[in-house]
Amino acid sequence: MSGFVSFVGSGPGDPDLLTLRAVNRLKGAEAVLFDDLSAGPILDLVPAGAELIAVGKRAGRPSPKQDHVSRLLVDYARGGARVVRLKAGDPGIFGRLEEEITALRGAGIGYEIVPGITSAAAAAAAAGIPLTRRLEARRVQFVTGHDVTGGLPEGLNLAALADPQATTVVFMPKRTFAALAARLMAAGLPGTTPALLAENVSHPDQTLTRSTVEGLARVLETAASRAPGLILYGPLAE
Amino acid sequence: MSGFVSFVGSGPGDPDLLTLRAVNRLKGAEAVLFDDLSAGPILDLVPAGAELIAVGKRAGRPSPKQDHVSRLLVDYARGGARVVRLKAGDPGIFGRLEEEITALRGAGIGYEIVPGITSAAAAAAAAGIPLTRRLEARRVQFVTGHDVTGGLPEGLNLAALADPQATTVVFMPKRTFAALAARLMAAGLPGTTPALLAENVSHPDQTLTRSTVEGLARVLETAASRAPGLILYGPLAE
Repeated sequence: MSGFVSFVGSGPGDPDLLTLRAVNRLKGAEAVLFDDLSAGPILDLVPAGAELIAVGKRAGRPSPKQDHVSRLLVDYARGGARVVRLKAGDPGIFGRLEEEITALRGAGIGYEIVPGITSAAAAAAAAGIPLTRRLEARRVQFVTGHDVTGGLPEGLNLAALADPQATTVVFMPKRTFAALAARLMAAGLPGTTPALLAENVSHPDQTLTRSTVEGLARVLETAASRAPGLILYGPLAE
Repeated sequence: MSGFVSFVGSGPGDPDLLTLRAVNRLKGAEAVLFDDLSAGPILDLVPAGAELIAVGKRAGRPSPKQDHVSRLLVDYARGGARVVRLKAGDPGIFGRLEEEITALRGAGIGYEIVPGITSAAAAAAAAGIPLTRRLEARRVQFVTGHDVTGGLPEGLNLAALADPQATTVVFMPKRTFAALAARLMAAGLPGTTPALLAENVSHPDQTLTRSTVEGLARVLETAASRAPGLILYGPLAE
């Protein structure tokens, strides 16, 4: 009999921000595959007898071969296990879920997605601000700061990203934000647009730095922090 | 002594998708202000002695005066109560949080935001699809289908919304989607772009309708369903 895979969103890291369904899946897991970013005290919920498999994806470092993770998932499920694939934040948002789902479908293995609190919502909540405002920020958008090569993604939609009436959240922004900010300002976004850098969201060492698009670009050009973080810019980021 | 207000995201409706922190706040509440969309079995978590105050905001109907809700919040908190303001989905995403926060700040009352599972993530999870894909859907954006007048919001960024490389989620889309789709197609988005209508997400009567932008526009032009829903379009909506 074949097993089953639950893609479970871990939220930003504080176990208090897990959903009841996520807790249930973790407590019932026989094997848990996790990235460094989705781990921490959340793994304490997994029963003692279950296998914990670190697949070692980290922000700003080369990923292990995606193929390898997909193969592990398929192998554990084929062995009949209730498998949890833990993903930071919401598994559907920059979680590279697609490749793993495709592998499971190909192997005829059932799966479900348990949504999680995205770091974007958790960062805004921690800062005490909403992501949308009735007249001034009626669109909210999420993008990543880098593609697989580690550089700014190609084909950025600058008309979308330089829109002063939107709230934009850049995931994994640090290495490329200076370059992105230059493109945004060239496309018309004022450098004075409020911007918030949120690091280690929901963890005890969480920091929130309020600045502007231009200000954060300057700071990040020289900063060495490797803490996972995101940048939120737009009228609401004050 | 002054009370405290917790803005709590209820998620899409299934209590299983509440966070542990949300459950904790509901169990400790002395007064809960809720909209119709955020209610249901979730309210069973509130202790028997607590006050439940329906403030009656519903999709597609005139809202009660926002002033009135803000005044109630301030009054309950001034009375010293631990107040929960329950909001559907994530409170920071189209939850009109701003007005209520401003009122609390003005009255010197402390508050926190407890993030919730946004319906957008829950709908994608229910459909078994991610919201982003590495090369083809690197930007995800959320917009509302109508403004306070009930019509399509003014000043839509069509360069952003007609981008075939993004995943777009339209909240409260039903009354205006035909008009929006016409604008999107005029701006270059193929009518054949995959689109998914998700209704009553996470509830027992959840329905998922897979179609195209053009197809859903046609259906919604004549459909009478008043179930709360959202539309997700883009390459991943297949």
